[in-house]
Amino acid sequence: MLCLLEWSPAVDAGNVNHGAMSLIVQKYGGTSVGNTDRIKNVAQRVKEYHSRGDQVVVVVSAMSGVTDGLIALARQIAPLPSEREMDMLLATGEQQTIALTAIALHTLGVQAVSMTGAQAGIVTDGVHTKAKINNITPREVHKKLDGGNVVIVAGFQGETSEGQITTLGRGGSDLTAIALAAALKADLCQIYTDVDGVYTADPRIVSGAKKLPEISYDEMLELASLGAKVMQSRSVEFAKKFGVVFEVRSSLNENPGTIVKEETKNMEGVVVRGVAFDKNQAKVTLVGVPDRPGVAAKVFTALGGAAVNVDMIVQNISHGAGERQTDISFTVEKADLLKAKKVIDGLKQEAGFKECITSEKIGKLSIVGVGMKSHSGVAGKLFETLAAEGVNIDMISTSEIKISVVMDVARGEAAMKAVHAAFIG
Amino acid sequence: MLCLLEWSPAVDAGNVNHGAMSLIVQKYGGTSVGNTDRIKNVAQRVKEYHSRGDQVVVVVSAMSGVTDGLIALARQIAPLPSEREMDMLLATGEQQTIALTAIALHTLGVQAVSMTGAQAGIVTDGVHTKAKINNITPREVHKKLDGGNVVIVAGFQGETSEGQITTLGRGGSDLTAIALAAALKADLCQIYTDVDGVYTADPRIVSGAKKLPEISYDEMLELASLGAKVMQSRSVEFAKKFGVVFEVRSSLNENPGTIVKEETKNMEGVVVRGVAFDKNQAKVTLVGVPDRPGVAAKVFTALGGAAVNVDMIVQNISHGAGERQTDISFTVEKADLLKAKKVIDGLKQEAGFKECITSEKIGKLSIVGVGMKSHSGVAGKLFETLAAEGVNIDMISTSEIKISVVMDVARGEAAMKAVHAAFIG
Repeated sequence: MLCLLEWSPAVDAGNVNHGAMSLIVQKYGGTSVGNTDRIKNVAQRVKEYHSRGDQVVVVVSAMSGVTDGLIALARQIAPLPSEREMDMLLATGEQQTIALTAIALHTLGVQAVSMTGAQAGIVTDGVHTKAKINNITPREVHKKLDGGNVVIVAGFQGETSEGQITTLGRGGSDLTAIALAAALKADLCQIYTDVDGVYTADPRIVSGAKKLPEISYDEMLELASLGAKVMQSRSVEFAKKFGVVFEVRSSLNENPGTIVKEETKNMEGVVVRGVAFDKNQAKVTLVGVPDRPGVAAKVFTALGGAAVNVDMIVQNISHGAGERQTDISFTVEKADLLKAKKVIDGLKQEAGFKECITSEKIGKLSIVGVGMKSHSGVAGKLFETLAAEGVNIDMISTSEIKISVVMDVARGEAAMKAVHAAFIG
Repeated sequence: MLCLLEWSPAVDAGNVNHGAMSLIVQKYGGTSVGNTDRIKNVAQRVKEYHSRGDQVVVVVSAMSGVTDGLIALARQIAPLPSEREMDMLLATGEQQTIALTAIALHTLGVQAVSMTGAQAGIVTDGVHTKAKINNITPREVHKKLDGGNVVIVAGFQGETSEGQITTLGRGGSDLTAIALAAALKADLCQIYTDVDGVYTADPRIVSGAKKLPEISYDEMLELASLGAKVMQSRSVEFAKKFGVVFEVRSSLNENPGTIVKEETKNMEGVVVRGVAFDKNQAKVTLVGVPDRPGVAAKVFTALGGAAVNVDMIVQNISHGAGERQTDISFTVEKADLLKAKKVIDGLKQEAGFKECITSEKIGKLSIVGVGMKSHSGVAGKLFETLAAEGVNIDMISTSEIKISVVMDVARGEAAMKAVHAAFIG
């Protein structure tokens, strides 16, 4: 794995070069700390790093089920509870895990101290339930590390400069880990999860799927925004912005994971890094839209106003006699389809389209790879492969490092296998 | 209830005189917030006060069962977890309740905001799991109150001046409420619990037991240190020190409770305020102790060193020929008996006593009342009453406002009924 040696002069995938002491940030998700036995396992792993002489910062999530239990309690009281109070409530989940993890480390004879997000110096804006980290002042973390402690920090949370408790929203603990790694100038950041790393495709579907030793931030971002829900885009974006190299790996075994980093020349040799299939999309087609300026703007502004997230948009070239008409298709998350339909129906007269057709029976197949930038013919090969498989393509959308097609969801698995075989093997 | 009118010019038991706006501190214990329905009930009650125009500060405990659940989790990891980490862990219980209570108030249209102990300005020393409140800076509480909010404060917790989370130990939420009432110069402090108030005796045993409209701090302290576990002594001592008048009442009904306050002339007219029976004691008798200076000191210093809490101590006049000998009896909590026995056995040779006899089949009956100070013949009447009931007295101990006797635990109920009938009716 040459790529790993290029990653950083001090570290490789999980094995720190002990010319100098390293600072390691490790993040463990909810299933990795799901019960006291798993917390003990985490402590054992942390001890291994700490006993090599490394400084270790551990970021933990709430034990799996705890956050959902708290949300259910709040909903028993109010269908739409105050966001400030939800932050006050949910921040307790991580606070419990840090204390239990510290206790587990103590039983192994490891000096350890827990810190809430606020105590670790994580300062956020005041947007409750989805706060952004403004800055981190990890003075106390450094002090405790220098005193020989493992420092266990509550993920997912911070504090405003006015002392209000905030949470960072979905995937917040990953963000805490990556932001802390940046602030502490850590040598290594490990995101422990319940998967082994990032694969070329979902291994439950494509038996030939391989774990990737490395992937670029941009590829990871495209995959995160597709079906491969290893991490939220936000954390990857943050890592990219601050140049934090991190490793996604499993807390259940000792296998090396996938390194996520800036793209290198070496990476461009691989055309397609991964294949993903997203079943969670629905398609909306507006038929017979008058081909006048401003109609599309009207439609998508209205959808944005209703907080409907639109993914792919395709407009065909207009044709026909009389006033020129066109068809506009777009995809939304299945959960938003009804809301989208309502918005569109309300616009029918104003926008002047003839018909609105929706379908939930679609899926989005994507291939991702930074190598596409310098390789031509990738799209052609994709379409050929799908044609040979008898898959009809509904919509096509491309970016610099991704090609996505919308197709019949029922053919998804077969298509994935064929495309994986054609591009990756 | 003349006594209540004397209590404070501005307030009576739960009904605030609205010549001026009042500031009320209410504390709700774990059973009062034991589930979301009960939290809604609490919110309803708080609303009633708030809608009169009063400023209301609500102190809540963890939902019943939550703290025990967290302790059990920690013990699954370590039999003796770090006290700092236990504070980090247990403080989450109250933090959950404040958020849920705020949410419940919002659904009733009441402006409300939750605060952790730290946010409310409760600064403690650094003795984890049993911290003492050093001072309270309730600036933020005042600010939120002035903004029209009900302020909900997490009981049982605070923060050191270095920002470490601490808890106040058993009964800590009562202490939070009383300390906040003192710091805020509250007009009224209400301790809501699952009993109606303080009774002349345990009403489950003595059918004629009456709820007391008022009781002095000292009487309450004597009762708290006996069987009547309405509140921990520490909170009552704090209230006495800072002159905080408070009311103990039920969160399950609208009945007025018991006002706890400095004693008044009026109170001295009542000789016996209450009768209590403590089954939780065990007796230790050292037989044939050489009547030399320093022997008792040796025994009780050793017990103190082993953290055995000794309650009553009785030494009989020495008698007999040869070296004078005496018997020393004392009581300890049943839970400490084995530890006490071990300490005593280790001293046998050095202290030179003949035998150590222990009994768990004893109980301590006490009568309490500030009126005893100015009334004679109370002890005689107590002993006569017990004699008439055929109850044998093992040990006697008296203070200025209390007489306690150790007796056969099996006769406890009968003795209580007889003594209650003789002194209270």
